[in-house]
Amino acid sequence: MDGRLMAQETTPPTRLRDMGIKLGLLAVGTYNAITDVAGVRVGHYTLRENDRPGSETRGPCNTGVTVIVPHSDDVWLDRVPAAFSMLNGAGEVTGREYLEELGTLDGPIFLTGTFNVPRVMDAVISEAVRRHPNIGMGRHFVNPFVAECSDAMLSDLVARPIGEREVAQAWSEAASGPVAEGSVGAGTGLVSFGFKAGIGTSSRVVEVNSQRYTVGVLVSANTGERELLTVKGIRVGSILDAPKPRWVQEGSIILIVATDAPMLSRQLKRLARRAEMGLARTGATASNGSGDFAVAFSTANRTKRGALSHNFVELDNDVVSPLFQATIEATEEALINALCASRDFVGRNGHFVAGLPLEQLKRMVPL
Amino acid sequence: MDGRLMAQETTPPTRLRDMGIKLGLLAVGTYNAITDVAGVRVGHYTLRENDRPGSETRGPCNTGVTVIVPHSDDVWLDRVPAAFSMLNGAGEVTGREYLEELGTLDGPIFLTGTFNVPRVMDAVISEAVRRHPNIGMGRHFVNPFVAECSDAMLSDLVARPIGEREVAQAWSEAASGPVAEGSVGAGTGLVSFGFKAGIGTSSRVVEVNSQRYTVGVLVSANTGERELLTVKGIRVGSILDAPKPRWVQEGSIILIVATDAPMLSRQLKRLARRAEMGLARTGATASNGSGDFAVAFSTANRTKRGALSHNFVELDNDVVSPLFQATIEATEEALINALCASRDFVGRNGHFVAGLPLEQLKRMVPL
Amino acid sequence: MDGRLMAQETTPPTRLRDMGIKLGLLAVGTYNAITDVAGVRVGHYTLRENDRPGSETRGPCNTGVTVIVPHSDDVWLDRVPAAFSMLNGAGEVTGREYLEELGTLDGPIFLTGTFNVPRVMDAVISEAVRRHPNIGMGRHFVNPFVAECSDAMLSDLVARPIGEREVAQAWSEAASGPVAEGSVGAGTGLVSFGFKAGIGTSSRVVEVNSQRYTVGVLVSANTGERELLTVKGIRVGSILDAPKPRWVQEGSIILIVATDAPMLSRQLKRLARRAEMGLARTGATASNGSGDFAVAFSTANRTKRGALSHNFVELDNDVVSPLFQATIEATEEALINALCASRDFVGRNGHFVAGLPLEQLKRMVPL
Amino acid sequence: MDGRLMAQETTPPTRLRDMGIKLGLLAVGTYNAITDVAGVRVGHYTLRENDRPGSETRGPCNTGVTVIVPHSDDVWLDRVPAAFSMLNGAGEVTGREYLEELGTLDGPIFLTGTFNVPRVMDAVISEAVRRHPNIGMGRHFVNPFVAECSDAMLSDLVARPIGEREVAQAWSEAASGPVAEGSVGAGTGLVSFGFKAGIGTSSRVVEVNSQRYTVGVLVSANTGERELLTVKGIRVGSILDAPKPRWVQEGSIILIVATDAPMLSRQLKRLARRAEMGLARTGATASNGSGDFAVAFSTANRTKRGALSHNFVELDNDVVSPLFQATIEATEEALINALCASRDFVGRNGHFVAGLPLEQLKRMVPL
Repeated sequence: MDGRLMAQETTPPTRLRDMGIKLGLLAVGTYNAITDVAGVRVGHYTLRENDRPGSETRGPCNTGVTVIVPHSDDVWLDRVPAAFSMLNGAGEVTGREYLEELGTLDGPIFLTGTFNVPRVMDAVISEAVRRHPNIGMGRHFVNPFVAECSDAMLSDLVARPIGEREVAQAWSEAASGPVAEGSVGAGTGLVSFGFKAGIGTSSRVVEVNSQRYTVGVLVSANTGERELLTVKGIRVGSILDAPKPRWVQEGSIILIVATDAPMLSRQLKRLARRAEMGLARTGATASNGSGDFAVAFSTANRTKRGALSHNFVELDNDVVSPLFQATIEATEEALINALCASRDFVGRNGHFVAGLPLEQLKRMVPL
Repeated sequence: MDGRLMAQETTPPTRLRDMGIKLGLLAVGTYNAITDVAGVRVGHYTLRENDRPGSETRGPCNTGVTVIVPHSDDVWLDRVPAAFSMLNGAGEVTGREYLEELGTLDGPIFLTGTFNVPRVMDAVISEAVRRHPNIGMGRHFVNPFVAECSDAMLSDLVARPIGEREVAQAWSEAASGPVAEGSVGAGTGLVSFGFKAGIGTSSRVVEVNSQRYTVGVLVSANTGERELLTVKGIRVGSILDAPKPRWVQEGSIILIVATDAPMLSRQLKRLARRAEMGLARTGATASNGSGDFAVAFSTANRTKRGALSHNFVELDNDVVSPLFQATIEATEEALINALCASRDFVGRNGHFVAGLPLEQLKRMVPL
Repeated sequence: MDGRLMAQETTPPTRLRDMGIKLGLLAVGTYNAITDVAGVRVGHYTLRENDRPGSETRGPCNTGVTVIVPHSDDVWLDRVPAAFSMLNGAGEVTGREYLEELGTLDGPIFLTGTFNVPRVMDAVISEAVRRHPNIGMGRHFVNPFVAECSDAMLSDLVARPIGEREVAQAWSEAASGPVAEGSVGAGTGLVSFGFKAGIGTSSRVVEVNSQRYTVGVLVSANTGERELLTVKGIRVGSILDAPKPRWVQEGSIILIVATDAPMLSRQLKRLARRAEMGLARTGATASNGSGDFAVAFSTANRTKRGALSHNFVELDNDVVSPLFQATIEATEEALINALCASRDFVGRNGHFVAGLPLEQLKRMVPL
Repeated sequence: MDGRLMAQETTPPTRLRDMGIKLGLLAVGTYNAITDVAGVRVGHYTLRENDRPGSETRGPCNTGVTVIVPHSDDVWLDRVPAAFSMLNGAGEVTGREYLEELGTLDGPIFLTGTFNVPRVMDAVISEAVRRHPNIGMGRHFVNPFVAECSDAMLSDLVARPIGEREVAQAWSEAASGPVAEGSVGAGTGLVSFGFKAGIGTSSRVVEVNSQRYTVGVLVSANTGERELLTVKGIRVGSILDAPKPRWVQEGSIILIVATDAPMLSRQLKRLARRAEMGLARTGATASNGSGDFAVAFSTANRTKRGALSHNFVELDNDVVSPLFQATIEATEEALINALCASRDFVGRNGHFVAGLPLEQLKRMVPL
């Protein structure tokens, strides 16, 4: 473990606004996090072995799982409307078909490293059955929603160390309030724009019909080329002085959008599409090998299990544009936050990835 | 084990054409199976515990896995163009995003019972890594394509007994020639129209541009209500004299279409859509709880790993309609074959499902 | 005008149930028509010149326009939720993008012959502006929903004779109650399965949550090959003794589904997809040159112009399957009704198309 | 006609690069225009009546039509592969269904003002029939691809003055080489970010597999709010000193992507999606009332009418990412060019829209 790594361990995470840099025009929520949407909780399980001796096929693991729980009631009984969008499909997501056909999420959203997906799915089934023993015994099912980014550069992908214990822990520890960012949970081994990245989050508050609504975004970021990194419109990637990783992959990004605005799946799909627009502002291009998926849900309507019909409230189309803008801004900032919160990292086989040089960045970007 | 079950064990499987009943106008291939498309291989692993004493949560398993291997070369190195269609999404399929974005399959197609999906995915990763150790170590991935139908009525869904050994065996034993149908592989615990069902297959041969092309279909069938069962246009479901299961679920169906006609993903999507039309002719309605997915691939073009560009041949749009008709007919017959090949079955907790009464059927349906 | 034509003029239209033949399991509504959904109105403008001398490029026209008005209030102010599905895209439909994005119809549905589409669109704009002069002057628009089938065999496609007068008349004369079928309106010059076809309609009534709901379907039918025509499961096409047209095109079909069940766009899309399943049961294959589009709307929710949010009621996913079955049955019967109501027809350049031989049919199909 | 307007008439159009401002990392083509893709031609018909006395319902028209012809051969006989993407659907596009199902364009792409769409469609049919008299007489059709943006602020939408003569002229005068930008053709009456906008274009050249390929983009721009306008990452919209229009609509944008890289419809859809990412970088948000459509075509493959099969070349997925980046950059610059080329404009009812203040802009944006 070298000095660089030591430094990283002792520096607390930073956020873009900690440096006085504001993105966008809209106000942010209390925590500037997806948890500003009341009831939304986030949990991480982080497995961080950094650089220990290991064979090529069984090297150290730097990976994890992140869970986003839509509300504080039982998420299987009280489902929330949700929608999905795919910007580029070179990745894996499970539970999408159920989500799109039925228009709801029947559990939390799980994010993890690529080859962990099946074991996380499997663990979600186990945990859901533990909570609801009638699942699987009759006409009751659960459809785990799990999406991945590849941590292959820094973690042994094939080891697949995230199972029942890790999933249950992340889920049970999911909390409201501030959200840990950077190299935590599913973000532990991720890289974006040639810098260490991982989990990032942000939120916006807008007024629609004289009501205040919050949009919160959380990203699991593994996307973008160094030269293209753009912070608040400044293409800093080509001028930041920091070593590039010796080894680059095309990456992926998962974009989670939560809102308390009353919307149903059709409207939520529009938010998911706008998250992609926020992504574009960072310089990401959704390159060929990228799995870029967005999912949006609203906490303001519930599809209660057993109810024969539902009374939904939905904002009129004509008033939703501010929520589009909120989604775009929060997504852009969430991704930059994922970079700001991450530090230098040494992973599998000594692969080194630099943290974003924050002091340099501060000098380059207007406040 | 009662007498009914004994009978079942000793009766060889039957196919619709064994009874002299022909469906559709087009000629069938040598085996009237998906394997009539040269190079396509099918393998099954069957776990059949029938009715043994067991707790509600750890009852006997009647489940399995079925694999369809697109050709006899290395399917990860030589990918085939493919397409996907979703008729109803209350089910799970993995690998779809990769398939749709990249337009290819990078491995075989796996079918299994609902909650087995993650363990089958996990096993496919293991097996793919065993065959190609560079997977997961750099920029190489594998995207397991796994689709499910629920065998919850006859098998303990939560037990999830299909893992690495079972997947590897099905894959390695995949063979061309005749295909086992009915209560085998992923079809072991399936039910359709209130009768025992499972795997079924059929094929059609058509002439396009003076060339003979084959379309082969394989289904994993768990769909339909008794009253609606329609065989060769005759709504036999309401007149067949056979006990109904005490317990019914809404079911699902997976439709696999293979062809040697030169097509790419856009054209193949059209075949996947036509498989849904063949399904409709049997009386299936893709009810709310059903996961009805179709995937189509062509063996006549390859996307070779490492090649920088590809020379593809594709039939003109104006000549493909006979392949639509072939897909429709083969799908309809494959589903009826899944019923014809299945016998009375006693599964989890003594749940009994009758086999299709073939003698009765023969009297009701014109040849 | 030959004797065959004379006969045709004097025979009243027939419907499948007039011959005692019942399709499906469910009950039909009062008129067995799309107008069984309360408030839905249908209007036709028919231009029937039959076979008069004419040049190749300016021959006689046998075409028209059909309008389906979703309810009896102002359809621009009180929009209904709607959804769209495309089975095969070799056709034209306008207004689809608005419908899919906003989830509503902002006017009636218009059906016409292929090259009439722009002139019908143009006329709908004129009529909408006449009714609402603020359209086009500010932020108010109208998005004409117009879909077509080709009447090229029997009508001069290039003449495009349907304009403002014809559209306004069909719209203003739209009525509830019995619906004229066969060679009327958009169906005037259509052909299906090598027989004269056109407009057909049917309905089903189902009970969901102890409430009776109606599904009504109207089709504009120009689809299918003679050999494949299937009536109540009997492939009658190959045995009916009637001359085939000398000239065949691949055709198209538009499927309109109306319901009074409380559904929103996501659920309605599921009905649109089931209409395609009903189509499949008639032997249609959605061949390459076909434009097969389905649109479904519900009269039970309104998106009122000017409202800032909406209170919607929607049936739970778990209870909607009977509406799927209703859609499938009504679509199948609507298409057969389109055939039953049509008589021998002589159109452009003396092209002759036989009416379905009803007496023969009656002998072939069980009651 | 005031002095402001006079000034506008005599100032030649400017482009972003004329001011020394470069966007993006990649090289531009000869003309920095969609016509850098060899064979692509662009034509405009401009109707500019500016502010003349007129009633509310029959005011002056400032509208037009723009045509993009994919190559210099017969575009109906030699179709090019194409794909479509919809970012927001509050607009109209015709010909999309054919394009998506058959994977090709069978004619040029036409852009115009909203309510002109039907008359442009109608004119395209007339012109196509004039060129190919067998269209409409048998099994031959034409599927006009027409997309719109609203020029309602500056032009009388209801007047619909673009018909056969205007379309034929734009089409016949379509030329390669430099492309007129700003208030011309379909862009005559358009507004973006509260500034006068219209047509803009740009291109990029990239090397893939040691071959140089060009991506050219043309936009018809009517999108964005003043505060959000972002040029080269600088949110200039809130600091530029220029009057805002008294009246704002939500607008739309059509994004046309052309390339000579060998791609088919699936790959081209990926380019269409990236055009949306370029749009996002300008501050556009695809607000509720916007019709944001992208279409991409390749000149490197042809679907020849009458051929029974086709030999296509397609780049491997793994090498196409540079074309994604090229599309993003060219789209961003095309939209800014649409603003730079436009001058102060007085339209219908004296509505005034300022041109982008170029001198101010130059001082705000780094070179």
